[in-house]
Amino acid sequence: MGQDTRTALLEAARAMFAENGYDRATVRAIATRAGVDPAMVNHWFGGKEGLFARAVLHVPFDHREIVDRVTADGPDHLGENIVRTFVTVWDGAGGDVFAALVRGVSTHEQALTVLRDTLVDTMLAEIVRTAGTDAPDLRAALCATQIVGLGMMRYVVGLEPVASADIDTLVATVAPTLQHYLTGDLSPGGSDAGP
Amino acid sequence: MGQDTRTALLEAARAMFAENGYDRATVRAIATRAGVDPAMVNHWFGGKEGLFARAVLHVPFDHREIVDRVTADGPDHLGENIVRTFVTVWDGAGGDVFAALVRGVSTHEQALTVLRDTLVDTMLAEIVRTAGTDAPDLRAALCATQIVGLGMMRYVVGLEPVASADIDTLVATVAPTLQHYLTGDLSPGGSDAGP
Repeated sequence: MGQDTRTALLEAARAMFAENGYDRATVRAIATRAGVDPAMVNHWFGGKEGLFARAVLHVPFDHREIVDRVTADGPDHLGENIVRTFVTVWDGAGGDVFAALVRGVSTHEQALTVLRDTLVDTMLAEIVRTAGTDAPDLRAALCATQIVGLGMMRYVVGLEPVASADIDTLVATVAPTLQHYLTGDLSPGGSDAGP
Repeated sequence: MGQDTRTALLEAARAMFAENGYDRATVRAIATRAGVDPAMVNHWFGGKEGLFARAVLHVPFDHREIVDRVTADGPDHLGENIVRTFVTVWDGAGGDVFAALVRGVSTHEQALTVLRDTLVDTMLAEIVRTAGTDAPDLRAALCATQIVGLGMMRYVVGLEPVASADIDTLVATVAPTLQHYLTGDLSPGGSDAGP
């Protein structure tokens, strides 16, 4: 029972921080959405700040599993698997975490650090390593521009038709970009420089 | 003299809203940075909210000129010209506006609307039109994912080596993506689907 309440509060918090940002999401509204007494927020998380930390900044997630899914089919399928894996995770609860992080950067400097550390330093660096190509830092950063931009448009800005496109459409359009960033020739006029 | 003070205040405001977000940027600090009396903020802009509106939300800019520069060399050079033009504008004062908008989304819902209206509805829609290809909305949205993601990493997150890469490096790496989104075959397995 306690665990259910806690989970409901975390989910409601993620959704409201994602929709409204930190300042405008109130403890009362979050508790109402979760169907619990606002006093439980203090009881479980020590207040709004603690709730944000636990629901958005310190979400435990299995980055190992994500990297394994992305790299499972070898270097030639990294682009496709990145799109499939990230969009699947984000279309679940992860999208709220991502949007809450982006909307939280003005109140929580740490939100940017989490975004960078989790996405780039932890996951993309490892994915690039499996590609075995030159300029790994540049390749990881380029992938970050495309993935974060996709997340921004789909989950924060809600730009159509990207916001409600199905995964296959996103794979068909965005995966070649990521594949190029990971394994393509990045030099000017490189043999496969044009997508 | 009055105009210089006003310009200095707007520039200082953009820089501090970009670095700190709306809430943490104080009128006093902005005025100090501009070397003017904080009272001038009220005099010129009616307070912090008015300053944010004028410095970030309602920046008059010549979108016609940007679209003209991007489209000047025909459909085959749109990708390169987008990167050159946007990065040049953003590396100037525009980068602060962009970062302040992104950092302002949690306090000013309008910041997202400005980002979307200015970038996508006004400029990208027109650029896509000159490409004369199918699926203009999808192509504009895909370009937005890559451009906004590049801006996020370069001006907000400060992710290296993208943050300090020179324009030629960004053109060599990112322009082929934009060119593909604008004029490439976007169908699955399209003849030029791989960058």
